[in-house]
Amino acid sequence: MNLILLENKDFVDPGTVVVTGRRLRHLLSVNKVNEKDSLVCGLLNGKIGTGVVEKRSESFLEMRVELTQDPPEPLPLTLVLALPRPKMLKRIVETVTTLGVKNIYLINSWRVEKSFWQSPLLDMDTLEKHMILGLEQSRDTIMPKIFQKRFFTKFVNEELSLISKDTLRITAHPKAGHICPVGINKAITLVIGPEGGFIDIEIETLEKQGFLSCHIGQRILKVETAVTFLISRLFS
Amino acid sequence: MNLILLENKDFVDPGTVVVTGRRLRHLLSVNKVNEKDSLVCGLLNGKIGTGVVEKRSESFLEMRVELTQDPPEPLPLTLVLALPRPKMLKRIVETVTTLGVKNIYLINSWRVEKSFWQSPLLDMDTLEKHMILGLEQSRDTIMPKIFQKRFFTKFVNEELSLISKDTLRITAHPKAGHICPVGINKAITLVIGPEGGFIDIEIETLEKQGFLSCHIGQRILKVETAVTFLISRLFS
Repeated sequence: MNLILLENKDFVDPGTVVVTGRRLRHLLSVNKVNEKDSLVCGLLNGKIGTGVVEKRSESFLEMRVELTQDPPEPLPLTLVLALPRPKMLKRIVETVTTLGVKNIYLINSWRVEKSFWQSPLLDMDTLEKHMILGLEQSRDTIMPKIFQKRFFTKFVNEELSLISKDTLRITAHPKAGHICPVGINKAITLVIGPEGGFIDIEIETLEKQGFLSCHIGQRILKVETAVTFLISRLFS
Repeated sequence: MNLILLENKDFVDPGTVVVTGRRLRHLLSVNKVNEKDSLVCGLLNGKIGTGVVEKRSESFLEMRVELTQDPPEPLPLTLVLALPRPKMLKRIVETVTTLGVKNIYLINSWRVEKSFWQSPLLDMDTLEKHMILGLEQSRDTIMPKIFQKRFFTKFVNEELSLISKDTLRITAHPKAGHICPVGINKAITLVIGPEGGFIDIEIETLEKQGFLSCHIGQRILKVETAVTFLISRLFS
């Protein structure tokens, strides 16, 4: 835990928090905190600063906190992802949160297995837990937003054009003719298909909405590797 | 399975292979292959081509193969990694194999938990299984080499200088003053520390051997994310 993510309910007065539960257990067993230690803290969707441990027990940690700095800049990227296998989804959500992605659309596509949409991991409370782990890892406080879209064509034709307005539109597609650009460093909407890729008609639907299909080389990567690889390449 | 990785023992005559076991089960249940299907095949540490299914049964698959193309170029990167948590290690090994890394040194460091070295996952047969999955994923045939080095200072002072000769030497270090370069696209030796980072004296030891310490931004990434992120950035 590189940052203790605080919520308003942790505050007992404006400058004092009491931490319990999962965060407490982690701070005691992994971070091995002691009284007088100074720790990096942040308020969920708010500022970052330090907390000094004033009382430490097995049931709570009381800290004096001062939160004055802004969290790191969000990545100007909207990620549109064909729903991956649930176990992979939770890792991807956590990873892209550490990378600073703030808007994630999970969409259907021909090669997404229908059963994936039934997974309890798609529950927003569960996804939030993984995003919190990502924020704690990367010292960020701004919770990403996740949207679930079950109808590919309707979503691409009716919503995606507005969502991706004024951004560079890219679809990662192993069979594309173009190589993915490098170091764009401006607002991007990035669409990534399922294992096995989008089918031709899906690529056409995206291209009609102005999405450039591009590949990242000869090697076929797993979706979870491709996501990090693409983000690093686009914002290098 | 994007490529069926063949071994010499699979050949019943120079142009015919018989596939059984794990590969067969995967080809039947996931790839759903049928007779006359043409599949991408490759010989372990050899050429790539196609295999046409001549006989398909529940106990074996017989294919007529023609292997004439070279595997994809290896990445000119030597990866030196402080031994990660075993569960993360297997994912990292598989991922960097898909990315084309061919030389991996697993080293000790102050913040590597001693118990990690006792893990059965460090067994070479187990690591090879994960590398095979990586080769099958990325359509490659060249098995990476993994070396395990238990003595940090001895390794860095006595071996690493030779290993990294004529390469750009980089240590990824969140507290470094320089930002990691982009698009190097030449031979690199990349050293990545454990969760929590190298300690100061380890960084000094590496710097004495010519390793430039550099960071990848304000956010602290998990080792498995950092590995892909760095490789993408260095070879973009």
